[in-house]
Amino acid sequence: MTSPTARFAGVVPPIVTPLNDEGGIDVASLERLVETQLEAGVHGIFALGSSGETVFLTDEQRDRALEVIIKTTAGKVPVIAGCIEPSTQRVIDRADASLRLGADALVTTAPFYAIVGPHETERHFRAVAAATDLPLLAYDIPACVNTKLSVDLLTTLVAGGVIAGVKDSSGDDVAFRQLLLSVRDNAPDAAFSALTGHEVVVDAMMLAGASGAVPGLANVDPDGYVRLHNACIAGDWDAARTEQDRLTRLFRIVGAADPATTAGATRGVGAFKTALQLLGVIDSNAVSLPLRPLDEAESGRVRVELERAGLL
Amino acid sequence: MTSPTARFAGVVPPIVTPLNDEGGIDVASLERLVETQLEAGVHGIFALGSSGETVFLTDEQRDRALEVIIKTTAGKVPVIAGCIEPSTQRVIDRADASLRLGADALVTTAPFYAIVGPHETERHFRAVAAATDLPLLAYDIPACVNTKLSVDLLTTLVAGGVIAGVKDSSGDDVAFRQLLLSVRDNAPDAAFSALTGHEVVVDAMMLAGASGAVPGLANVDPDGYVRLHNACIAGDWDAARTEQDRLTRLFRIVGAADPATTAGATRGVGAFKTALQLLGVIDSNAVSLPLRPLDEAESGRVRVELERAGLL
Amino acid sequence: MTSPTARFAGVVPPIVTPLNDEGGIDVASLERLVETQLEAGVHGIFALGSSGETVFLTDEQRDRALEVIIKTTAGKVPVIAGCIEPSTQRVIDRADASLRLGADALVTTAPFYAIVGPHETERHFRAVAAATDLPLLAYDIPACVNTKLSVDLLTTLVAGGVIAGVKDSSGDDVAFRQLLLSVRDNAPDAAFSALTGHEVVVDAMMLAGASGAVPGLANVDPDGYVRLHNACIAGDWDAARTEQDRLTRLFRIVGAADPATTAGATRGVGAFKTALQLLGVIDSNAVSLPLRPLDEAESGRVRVELERAGLL
Amino acid sequence: MTSPTARFAGVVPPIVTPLNDEGGIDVASLERLVETQLEAGVHGIFALGSSGETVFLTDEQRDRALEVIIKTTAGKVPVIAGCIEPSTQRVIDRADASLRLGADALVTTAPFYAIVGPHETERHFRAVAAATDLPLLAYDIPACVNTKLSVDLLTTLVAGGVIAGVKDSSGDDVAFRQLLLSVRDNAPDAAFSALTGHEVVVDAMMLAGASGAVPGLANVDPDGYVRLHNACIAGDWDAARTEQDRLTRLFRIVGAADPATTAGATRGVGAFKTALQLLGVIDSNAVSLPLRPLDEAESGRVRVELERAGLL
Repeated sequence: MTSPTARFAGVVPPIVTPLNDEGGIDVASLERLVETQLEAGVHGIFALGSSGETVFLTDEQRDRALEVIIKTTAGKVPVIAGCIEPSTQRVIDRADASLRLGADALVTTAPFYAIVGPHETERHFRAVAAATDLPLLAYDIPACVNTKLSVDLLTTLVAGGVIAGVKDSSGDDVAFRQLLLSVRDNAPDAAFSALTGHEVVVDAMMLAGASGAVPGLANVDPDGYVRLHNACIAGDWDAARTEQDRLTRLFRIVGAADPATTAGATRGVGAFKTALQLLGVIDSNAVSLPLRPLDEAESGRVRVELERAGLL
Repeated sequence: MTSPTARFAGVVPPIVTPLNDEGGIDVASLERLVETQLEAGVHGIFALGSSGETVFLTDEQRDRALEVIIKTTAGKVPVIAGCIEPSTQRVIDRADASLRLGADALVTTAPFYAIVGPHETERHFRAVAAATDLPLLAYDIPACVNTKLSVDLLTTLVAGGVIAGVKDSSGDDVAFRQLLLSVRDNAPDAAFSALTGHEVVVDAMMLAGASGAVPGLANVDPDGYVRLHNACIAGDWDAARTEQDRLTRLFRIVGAADPATTAGATRGVGAFKTALQLLGVIDSNAVSLPLRPLDEAESGRVRVELERAGLL
Repeated sequence: MTSPTARFAGVVPPIVTPLNDEGGIDVASLERLVETQLEAGVHGIFALGSSGETVFLTDEQRDRALEVIIKTTAGKVPVIAGCIEPSTQRVIDRADASLRLGADALVTTAPFYAIVGPHETERHFRAVAAATDLPLLAYDIPACVNTKLSVDLLTTLVAGGVIAGVKDSSGDDVAFRQLLLSVRDNAPDAAFSALTGHEVVVDAMMLAGASGAVPGLANVDPDGYVRLHNACIAGDWDAARTEQDRLTRLFRIVGAADPATTAGATRGVGAFKTALQLLGVIDSNAVSLPLRPLDEAESGRVRVELERAGLL
Repeated sequence: MTSPTARFAGVVPPIVTPLNDEGGIDVASLERLVETQLEAGVHGIFALGSSGETVFLTDEQRDRALEVIIKTTAGKVPVIAGCIEPSTQRVIDRADASLRLGADALVTTAPFYAIVGPHETERHFRAVAAATDLPLLAYDIPACVNTKLSVDLLTTLVAGGVIAGVKDSSGDDVAFRQLLLSVRDNAPDAAFSALTGHEVVVDAMMLAGASGAVPGLANVDPDGYVRLHNACIAGDWDAARTEQDRLTRLFRIVGAADPATTAGATRGVGAFKTALQLLGVIDSNAVSLPLRPLDEAESGRVRVELERAGLL
C-alpha cells in the first residue's frame, strides 16, 4: 500500500562509510559497497546517515564519500544525503554541499545538543527546507537528538510541503502507524515517503502502509531486504514474514561486540562493517574514534551469524 | 501463526472498572460490560489491569470487581487477573486473593517505586511464580514501572517455566519481534503467550507472530478487534489492515481530553469510560482520584469519533 | 537560617524497618534503633519512608512498625509517617491509619504507576490534605515516581496551606534553592519546612536556607548528623564542612554491594541495615524481597568504611 | 578551600557570542562584553560554551569570536575555549584551531549524537588530551549529550593527568560533592579545577570545595559573582548567601520567555542577551536559528528583574 505520491520508496540502505586504517575514506571499498547494493536491486542509497558515521567525519571526508557514492550510483537510483548537524545554519551548509555534489534529496534530524522544543524544531525544518531546492526528509531519531517528532508536527510539515517524507528510527511503531493514517487523512495529496529505519519490523510496517525501509542491516544483506520488499509489494505476507524472520536473526550480529566494553554506536556500525569485511565487500572494519573496531573474538561471533543466515 | 503452546490467545480486553459517582464499584455496569465483551466473542478477559484502574482501588474493591467479572464470565473464557503492586509479597497477597476468587491466570509487572535492576526483577518473578499455582504472565510496561523487561530475561523466564507469557505495553515493537524469535529459538516447547497491548499495531504484531492482543480500546469496540483477529488468523491481511486502520482512527478518542489539564492515565481510561457511557454500556464515566472524568466538551469529541467509527 | 515557621526542622532520620529472617518486623531491633536515634539528639523521626521499605510492607506490618516507633519515641520528638501509595484514596487510607496510631505529620509523594501530570498531582495533594487533620509534607522523589514537583506547584501548595513542607530527594539542588527563595518571596508567612534528603550536601543546603535534613545515612551515624546540624545552626561552616566530608565518605557504604548483581534499593537500604547490624543496633540485615541482604564480602566492605569513619 | 593545584579558579563566565541582525559576529559588542567582564574582575573567560551558542556557529565564526575574545582579554586572565563537537576528530580539529588562536585551555564534552558508553567516553577524552598541548577540562552536561560523567571516570582521568578539571553542568550536586572528595582522596596531588556551572548554588558548592564557577548569569552581573566569590574565599558565608540569593532571584530572567513557544536554549541565552542589550553592553539580542530572540513583552519581563536586582 505504498502511497502513489511517495517519491522515495522501497529499500534504501543507509550505507556505512568504509575507512582505511589511517581513518581516511576507503574509496575502493565504498565503490564496491555501492555496486553490491545496486546489484541487489535496492531502490535508493542513503548516504551519510548514522550508519555512515556522518557525525564522526569532517566536511572534507563527507564530501569525498558523497562524491564517490553519487558517481558510483550513476543515477540508477536516487541518493539521499544526510545533513546531520546540531543547528540550522550548519545543516544548510551541508545541504548546499549535497546539492552541489549531486544528491537527489536530503535528510535532517531535529536540532541537537541545544535544548529545544517543538517551536524551535518546526522553525528548523522550515528554515532548512526554504534554503534548499532538494526534497527534504525528516529523520526521527530521539535516542540521538532527544526530540521525538510528534505525529502532529510531522503531519503539519508534510501538509505544508516542507518535508517529503520521514525516516523513522524512533523505535515507536505505534506513533509511526498513527502518522501513516494522519497524513492519509489530513494531507491525502501530499508527496509523502514513510520509511522505517527498524531492521526487524519491515514486514509489519509495510503491512501498516510504509513506503519502504532504511535498514542498516541491508548493508550486509541487501538481497534479503529486496526479497522482503518484493514479497510485501506482492501481498505475499507469509513469504515476507519468513524472510523478515531470517533477517531478524541475522540482526543479532549487533550483539557480537562485548557489551561490557562497547555501547550502541560501536555495536551497530562495528558489526555491519565487520560483516562486510568478512563478506569481502570492504577491506577493513575500522571505525571512527571514539568507537573501536570489533576484535577477533567478536568478529568470530559475526561470522557465525553470517553462516547461519546462509551468507557465508 | 499463533503458537500451538499459547494458553492465552486472541482478543483479551483489559476491561475498565466502572465506578459510581461515589467512587464505588458499579456492579450492574461491570456485568453489562463483561456481557458485551462475551457477546462480541472475545477470547479472554484481563481484569484489574492499568485500564482497570487497579492501582487506584482498595483490596476490597479489587476483590469485588474480580468476583463480579468471574461470575459474569462463568467460565466461558479465561479471566486473567492483574496483581499489580510495588513489591513481591504484596503481589503474592493479590495472587492468593485472585486464586481464591477463581481467576485462571495472573499478570504482574516488574517491581516499582523502589529502584531495582535485572537481578531484583528476575527474583521478583521467580518468587511470585513459586508462590502460586496459577500461570503467570509478565506485564512489560516501562512507562509505569521504569523497567523494560529485556528479551534475554523474558526468554530465560519462559524457558524456565516461570512465566507463561508476556503482555507487552512497552511501546517497543522491535524488542517484541525479537522476543518472539528468541523464544521460538531458545524455548521452542515452552508454553508462551505473546500478547501485544498496543491498540494500533495488532495486525502488524499478529503478522510478526503474536498470540493475541490486550487492547484497552477493545472495551469500546470488541467486535472490531474480534474481526481484526479473525482476519489475521485467516491470513486475510488486507482485511486485517482495513479493520486495524478503522480502529487506529477510533483510538483518537484518547486525544479527546484537553492536554493542558490532563495526562496519560486520565486521557486513556477517561476516554474509554466516556465512550462506554455514550454507548450505553456503563452508567457513568467516573474515574478514580486524582484523575478526573472527561467533561461535556471532551465527551462531545469522543462522540464524534464514535460516530465516525460507525459505533453510534 | 531555618525559617521560624518551620514546624519540622533539624535532623529527621528516615529510619529503616528492621526485619527478622522470616520477613516480619523485628520489634526489639526497631526499639533499639529508635532509642539510639533519640539518644543522639535527632529532632524527629521519619517512619515508613523509602529507607523504611514502606512499599514492601503490608498494611499490618506498617501499622506494627509505626506503633512501635511512636511508642518508643514517646512524644520526645515528632514522628512523621510516610503514606506512600500509588493513588489518592490509598494514601488517604494510610493517612487515617497514621492519625489513629498517633503520628504527628504525614509525608506523601506524587501519584505513581499511573501516568499523571501537574493537574492530577496537584489534585492528589489537595485531596489528601483535605482528608486529614495532620500536617502534610510533599516528598519529591522523581526517581521513584517519575514526577518532579515543580517550584511553582510546591509554592502554590505551601501558599495555600495544603502542605507544611517538602522532603527533597529529587537530586535537583538547583530547584531546591529556587524553591527556598520562591516560598520566601511568595508565601513569607506560611509554615514551611524544607528538608533535604541528600546525605552529602546537608551543609550546603543548610547554608542555602534548608530547615533540616532527612538523611538515610543518619540511621548509621545520627551523632554525626546532629553535630553537622549544630555546626550549621551556629554558623560554624568550617566545622560543618569537615563533618559533612566525613559523612560523605561514610556514605560510600552504598557502594559496598556488588553493582553487577544489585541496584539502588538493595544497595542503599541493604548497606544501612548491614552497618546497623555491624554496630550492634539491629539483629539482622534482612531486607524485603525482591531485594537481597548484603553478603559477607559486601558486609566486609561496609565494615571497612565504618572503621574509617571512626564508628567501629 | 580552593585546591592549591587548581589552575583555573574563581569566576569564569561562559560568555555569550553577540550577533548582529544578519547572524554574523558583532565584534564591537563582543569587545565591550569582554571588557565589562574584565573590569568586574572575573578570573577567566570561557569562550564558545553552550551560552556562547558554539554548536550554532560555523568554524569561521568560532575562530573570529575566539580571536576577538583573546585579543580583548590580552592575557589578563586565561581564556578557556570550548571545543564542542559530536566526535573525537572534530573536537581535535577545534583544539588545534584554539591552540593556534592562543587559547589557554580547552573544554570538551562527552561525544554526542552517537550512542556511546563509558569506554567510548574515556577513549574520547584520552584521545583529545593526547592530541593537544593545552590543558583539557571535561564538561559534564548530560542534558545536552546524554552521558553523565561518573565520579569514577572523572577521578581516573584526573589522576592520570588527562584532564585538569571539570565544568559541572550536570545538575547533580550530590555527585559533584562526591567528586570533590574522590579526587582529594585518590589524586591528592593532581591539578584539578572543579567549576560549577550552576548559577544558583555557587555559595553552596564553594562551601563544598569547588574551585570556582562558570555561571551563564555572570554575563549579566559579573560584579555580583565576583563579590559572591570574594565572600566565599573570605569565609564570610552570610555575605555569600545574601549575594547568592540576590543572584538567584535575578536568574528568574530565564523564565521571561513564553514557555508555550520557547524551550531551554532560547530561554537561557535569549534572556542573557536581552539583559545585556538592556544594560547597553551589546547591541542586539539576536540569537541563532532555530532559536528566536525574546520579543518586546518578554524583554519587558527581563527589564523588571534587572531593576529588582539593582542593575537598571
